[in-house]
Amino acid sequence: MSLFGLMQSPPLLVSSLLDHAERFHGDREVVSRRVEGDVHRTTYGALAARARKLANALKTLGVGESDRVGTLAWNGYRHLELYYAVSGSGAVLHTLNPRLAPDQLVYICGHAQDQALFFDLTFLPLVEAVAAKLTTVKHFVLMADRERMPAASKIANLLCYEDLVANASEAFVWPSFDESRASSLCYTSGTTGNPKGVLYSHRSTVLHTLAVGLPDALNLSARDVVLPVVPMFHVNAWGLPYACCMTGAKLVFPGPALDGKSLYELFEAEGVTMAAGVPTVWQGLLAHVDGAGVRFHSLERTVIGGAAAPRAMTEKFERTYDVRVIHAWGMTELSPVGTVCAFKAKHAGASEDARLDVQAKQGRAVYGVETKIVDEQGREIPFGSETSGDLLVRGPWVIDRYFGLEQESPLVDGWFPTGDVAKIDADGYVQITDRSKDVIKSGGEWIGSIDLENIAMAHPAVAMAACIAVAHPKWDERPLLVVVKKPNAEVTREDLLAFYEGKVAKWWVPDDVVFVDAIPLGATGKMQKNVLRDRFREHRLPGT
Amino acid sequence: MSLFGLMQSPPLLVSSLLDHAERFHGDREVVSRRVEGDVHRTTYGALAARARKLANALKTLGVGESDRVGTLAWNGYRHLELYYAVSGSGAVLHTLNPRLAPDQLVYICGHAQDQALFFDLTFLPLVEAVAAKLTTVKHFVLMADRERMPAASKIANLLCYEDLVANASEAFVWPSFDESRASSLCYTSGTTGNPKGVLYSHRSTVLHTLAVGLPDALNLSARDVVLPVVPMFHVNAWGLPYACCMTGAKLVFPGPALDGKSLYELFEAEGVTMAAGVPTVWQGLLAHVDGAGVRFHSLERTVIGGAAAPRAMTEKFERTYDVRVIHAWGMTELSPVGTVCAFKAKHAGASEDARLDVQAKQGRAVYGVETKIVDEQGREIPFGSETSGDLLVRGPWVIDRYFGLEQESPLVDGWFPTGDVAKIDADGYVQITDRSKDVIKSGGEWIGSIDLENIAMAHPAVAMAACIAVAHPKWDERPLLVVVKKPNAEVTREDLLAFYEGKVAKWWVPDDVVFVDAIPLGATGKMQKNVLRDRFREHRLPGT
Repeated sequence: MSLFGLMQSPPLLVSSLLDHAERFHGDREVVSRRVEGDVHRTTYGALAARARKLANALKTLGVGESDRVGTLAWNGYRHLELYYAVSGSGAVLHTLNPRLAPDQLVYICGHAQDQALFFDLTFLPLVEAVAAKLTTVKHFVLMADRERMPAASKIANLLCYEDLVANASEAFVWPSFDESRASSLCYTSGTTGNPKGVLYSHRSTVLHTLAVGLPDALNLSARDVVLPVVPMFHVNAWGLPYACCMTGAKLVFPGPALDGKSLYELFEAEGVTMAAGVPTVWQGLLAHVDGAGVRFHSLERTVIGGAAAPRAMTEKFERTYDVRVIHAWGMTELSPVGTVCAFKAKHAGASEDARLDVQAKQGRAVYGVETKIVDEQGREIPFGSETSGDLLVRGPWVIDRYFGLEQESPLVDGWFPTGDVAKIDADGYVQITDRSKDVIKSGGEWIGSIDLENIAMAHPAVAMAACIAVAHPKWDERPLLVVVKKPNAEVTREDLLAFYEGKVAKWWVPDDVVFVDAIPLGATGKMQKNVLRDRFREHRLPGT
Repeated sequence: MSLFGLMQSPPLLVSSLLDHAERFHGDREVVSRRVEGDVHRTTYGALAARARKLANALKTLGVGESDRVGTLAWNGYRHLELYYAVSGSGAVLHTLNPRLAPDQLVYICGHAQDQALFFDLTFLPLVEAVAAKLTTVKHFVLMADRERMPAASKIANLLCYEDLVANASEAFVWPSFDESRASSLCYTSGTTGNPKGVLYSHRSTVLHTLAVGLPDALNLSARDVVLPVVPMFHVNAWGLPYACCMTGAKLVFPGPALDGKSLYELFEAEGVTMAAGVPTVWQGLLAHVDGAGVRFHSLERTVIGGAAAPRAMTEKFERTYDVRVIHAWGMTELSPVGTVCAFKAKHAGASEDARLDVQAKQGRAVYGVETKIVDEQGREIPFGSETSGDLLVRGPWVIDRYFGLEQESPLVDGWFPTGDVAKIDADGYVQITDRSKDVIKSGGEWIGSIDLENIAMAHPAVAMAACIAVAHPKWDERPLLVVVKKPNAEVTREDLLAFYEGKVAKWWVPDDVVFVDAIPLGATGKMQKNVLRDRFREHRLPGT
């Protein structure tokens, strides 16, 4: 007969994170550079009180159990209030990516059946343009105070966020319910077909929060001052809005100003110890500090994810600026953190170069997530093999089904195929070599486009580089390097091809280089290689 | 209508911790100073393989789902194998405290209905003495290799651990089952009445593991080398056998040699970065390093719990030896960690004395645990009050019911009354001001005063007896027996101390006896031990 444990088993709920912050870190600051231009200061204590008011306001608006509430907002305290007020009260927070095309926003909002939409001042024109098509939305709420409300709007009954909060009672007790209930929803910006929704549960969110806080993950303590550049409107800002509440870290929100100078100034003014963002953001930051000849006075470490961290970037942060780089990998379907590159004891005595080699990888699976790679027949490739394969994951914060597509399982034998191609070394470190759709198949072997891009990015004249497959009569596909030069920099095709010598196997060296003015970026800042592939489909490689 | 999240929801199982260690830290060492006297070295990879063999061996022995398997063992690799083989295969690990009196062991083993008992060589005489009374135990297994098996034993069919492992197949897949299933069992050495069993679940254990690994808790990384002095036979060695697997920290087990010199030598030989134990153990360690004039070359921090860390001890570790002290509080009913003293950002600029003031407290609740103190009427005392009150806790690794006492709830409005009296400051730091009223903490272990009183009361010359704690330089506290003789009866101090022989463990026998005319009684007829404690505060125990 099964014997069950006799411990308490309260549901794991998102509201408990804010409760903890309020009780144990009530005086800890939450600082936001606002859309309005100023810097706003509050505390977890005050923010929790406002979140309770907002929960009452949602109730008054008729937002019911599991109703979806959309947000179109930058990283800021009001967005954080919504994270907790919506999920904590039992509704579902639906973060919308404002960088998506208006038609996609309309599709996503309709598919999610959002009942209310909260948006920053910045996005008023966007929302006004599509409001008529957002047929499920009963309440449009501008995240601003009364003074900043427009005199007239195309949106009838446009509500004022600060009025809602001001008029609501603070008396609200976060309800208790099944931890499997949905807490939030985020759509992937699929490159093919319609975006698909990932519906997180309270359980998956709390477990993810605990795991990403660990020392070998994001290593968050109450002494930290965290600035998430990674947006709260996408991949939950890597879980930081939850994990910082759990630990009592001071949160610093940058709002829409993500240029190097603005970020640097905010880092220095607020004593930021940890930041998190994608490589392109750090490129801007490093360009600023390099140019201005300044140093970081509080920044201890930065998490780089969303795309592979170029080795040259890691080296610059580590050696020039004495900032530790935490390379990580994740995706919307993983809540989002899957692997984080933390050293093992064995790396302690390694040379700087050997340590950079480790840091070039996306790291080990955070406990909870399991990783494996498989070959084209689905057979597992053992850790430590030189062969790359399709990366599959599973675990308590990995997707099971997409929202609205419950009849189809995206899983393969219980594992989620990430669409990434990777190697896993003997120590369990994952290195993403490609997206499976971006992989270059040359003579039956795979060439990782990301490696080739990282090498090009290390060239002083290169601002951005994409490596794509082009058809080849003998080898099926060969790599073509697409390059954006830095302003006023000069570099030739031959220079770049020579730059690969000794860095990769000869047959990995691109067959050709083309220079372009810009590489198209998607809504989440990633290079749209499918667009490049279409554009260069007919490109004639030398010797063919 | 409720909407449920669409994430994977695998059960949280103890076996996943060892799986993770095997897969990501297979070459990481587990080092044990053995009962046999030598130092044994293995790895998580090899240990996981042996745990699977052991799981098969348990199956062969007929250990079934949820059957209890007892252990009487020091901290060592075989004990760790049992932690995972037993719980991982769906049985229940029951760690027995070998320091209990034989009669208590017999009671506990019978109450738990242990089907098998695994024990170290050290405990062979103890087990032989009580084996006939352990009527539920079908298999006695000596945790030794064939060479060390006794030629003859009072125990019929005494099994050899290493034979069991050697003869079993390594082919075993950890089963998946409901995370609410019981994983392990530990009895409190109850102060009143019989010891009571705390039955942990896989869920509570895994959640506790995640939480204690966090930076503001035990802060465990793959770079750590951890030496748990705190026993695996009691309070799960503060969760370290689980948390080290989750993080890939090297584990160093001290076996039975817990004197200062042995520990110091092991710290140095194995590069220990973190240790965990009770104050009396650290007293011995500090006495050794002080006397020998040596330094710690790898030790970065030490966790002190089980009893309040004396300020002088913290100061010595921090200032003289540059070792960070992590003061913590917990109990069997909390899996066991409740609070850990980690600094906040605001303490960064504080003076050394002010920092020691913070470290004198047992710390903030680890996320998951909620703490409150209440007055005698059960009204909550706000954080920041100078008033102390009864400490109550709740959370996902806090007890709900005791094993075998499912009809009675120990909770008060859902909160577990810890029996400790504490203050909580404005920052949420708990300071235990008065240990549970009647308990005597000797060397980090509890001595039940009522048990001792009941024995005294059984003496024909004793009218009334109270047993109270008196300060002791080495053991923190030792029991003093306060006795009212029956009219015209005569009994000496020596008579009474001799009366305890064979009735309790030797270390439970009171250090001294004083005779009084009367013991003050409270309004409900209970002895006012606080009055006695005040009266005998300066009592000098023999030999001190």
